[in-house]
Amino acid sequence: MSMKIALVGIGKIAIDQHIPAINSSREWELAATVSRHGGIEDIENFADIQTMLDARPDIECVSLCLPPVPRFDYAVAALKAGRHVILEKPPGATVSECRTLEAMALDGGVTIYATWHSREAAQVDLARDWLRDKKLNSLRIIWKEDVRRWHPGQKWIWEAGGLGVFDPGINAFSILTKILPVPVHVTSAELRFPENCETPIAADIAFAHPSGAPVTAEFDFLEEGTQTWSMIIDTSGGELLLEEGGAKLTINGVEQADSTALAETEDGSNPLLGGEYTRLYARMANLVKAAQSEMDLSPFMHVSDCFLLGKRVTVAPFHE
Amino acid sequence: MSMKIALVGIGKIAIDQHIPAINSSREWELAATVSRHGGIEDIENFADIQTMLDARPDIECVSLCLPPVPRFDYAVAALKAGRHVILEKPPGATVSECRTLEAMALDGGVTIYATWHSREAAQVDLARDWLRDKKLNSLRIIWKEDVRRWHPGQKWIWEAGGLGVFDPGINAFSILTKILPVPVHVTSAELRFPENCETPIAADIAFAHPSGAPVTAEFDFLEEGTQTWSMIIDTSGGELLLEEGGAKLTINGVEQADSTALAETEDGSNPLLGGEYTRLYARMANLVKAAQSEMDLSPFMHVSDCFLLGKRVTVAPFHE
Repeated sequence: MSMKIALVGIGKIAIDQHIPAINSSREWELAATVSRHGGIEDIENFADIQTMLDARPDIECVSLCLPPVPRFDYAVAALKAGRHVILEKPPGATVSECRTLEAMALDGGVTIYATWHSREAAQVDLARDWLRDKKLNSLRIIWKEDVRRWHPGQKWIWEAGGLGVFDPGINAFSILTKILPVPVHVTSAELRFPENCETPIAADIAFAHPSGAPVTAEFDFLEEGTQTWSMIIDTSGGELLLEEGGAKLTINGVEQADSTALAETEDGSNPLLGGEYTRLYARMANLVKAAQSEMDLSPFMHVSDCFLLGKRVTVAPFHE
Repeated sequence: MSMKIALVGIGKIAIDQHIPAINSSREWELAATVSRHGGIEDIENFADIQTMLDARPDIECVSLCLPPVPRFDYAVAALKAGRHVILEKPPGATVSECRTLEAMALDGGVTIYATWHSREAAQVDLARDWLRDKKLNSLRIIWKEDVRRWHPGQKWIWEAGGLGVFDPGINAFSILTKILPVPVHVTSAELRFPENCETPIAADIAFAHPSGAPVTAEFDFLEEGTQTWSMIIDTSGGELLLEEGGAKLTINGVEQADSTALAETEDGSNPLLGGEYTRLYARMANLVKAAQSEMDLSPFMHVSDCFLLGKRVTVAPFHE
């Protein structure tokens, strides 16, 4: 028996990832979309969420792929209507509003799931397992991509609350907080804001690790050519290299076999993300069945901490 | 039987508030200070915390009155040495580090208390009780003070992580989160940064309230003359006016009698803060006796959210 799901916000990420993942799942049936700009072929589309919720009581779950700022009101509408809710990353525009949603879901007896797709990348679990008993010497995150290639026309990313380079950077933090066996916290950050944007285009961040080992992150949104989503982790057991956003793992120079089924990457729209969303929807199905929620906000908290204590530097204006 | 306490960071707030509050309490005995710049008469002073912890195993509790950025390492040292910890507001430089401290205290079986002195202002509890059954129409926070008068020479307040005008502003948020019966979250903020400072000197903030009622805050650090720490709250039951940082309460034009003992304000160094710290130390004694911790980070979370989604505007440089 599959559960009916509505997808809200039919943009690039919905079309590239959510729809193929839902369509490939036996547990979910895409029953409706909500989009002011039109939906997709053969699926009923609604211009606003309340109309959909009123018209389709058979839809048990709502997946929100909107930008973070408007997402809260949609989540509240869905929760008030007794539906389960899946949140794209970042789970909201503020950490406080996510806590409010979590409390609402608990009160209403429904599931809410703050997803972190990069945590589902093929080799992340293997990296976590290998690191568990190693002493950390250093950890360096390098997350450099071309915003014009991956976020074409996404004006919201440059508006206050849109996170700028932390929109991809939060993916690194979501992996970091999954693979490290101990918590870290930001101690300094330099945020570089284009003079015509409200969010940063680049950042350098330092974390404190209990062992004193240096943990750093370099984010850049203007990287042309080779795109880099890597972590270089030096430990008592040698070097772990996690590349391609968690899809490729090399330990002491030896590339590790992919631990996940290759079949999951067949949608092929973006090899770096292949399978991640399939696993998110499988996890959501399990959470609903178990009547549980999952709302780990630690990656978002680190982003928020960067903005809280970061130094702000103004750099050249950004033009698409 | 009084408990021995060490005070770390002997600056303005320690001398104006913490020391009188500890000295007036039968439950606490000021047994040592930690300060690189010298302590106070008749109390043993240590230049660094580890020396104090090693030399004075009889001291059960450590109260940290340092600026937020260096505070974490001191708290870790005290917790590792099995001491209870009191944190001045804000409880740290990042929300994540506060969560780490909370987990450490839980693991170590000691008490940690993130204090919010403004929550202990004389009329805050009365305001909370009155608001409990009212429908909110609007809430306006006006928090305007002269930084040169209240924070002379405190350079850290202008450095990244020092919070700027949110250092007093977080007091307003600590009251807001105590008196409102439902949670709110920041939806927009404008932060005004002096061109020579890393933290804002003024801010305008809007919150979302479940009822849709407008909830706003205006913070200004350049207010000369009359100082304003007020909340104007319009409700179904009329207007509640909380002034002087929570010390004065007027409901529908009638000033309410002070619900707390006047005797608590006798130190007199700052009439707005009188009694708040006495109550914080009384609460800490109760927490220690009950083997509990209190770490409500919601005021800090709202500050962090303001930085996360705030628009940044550059304004004239600030010179002391």
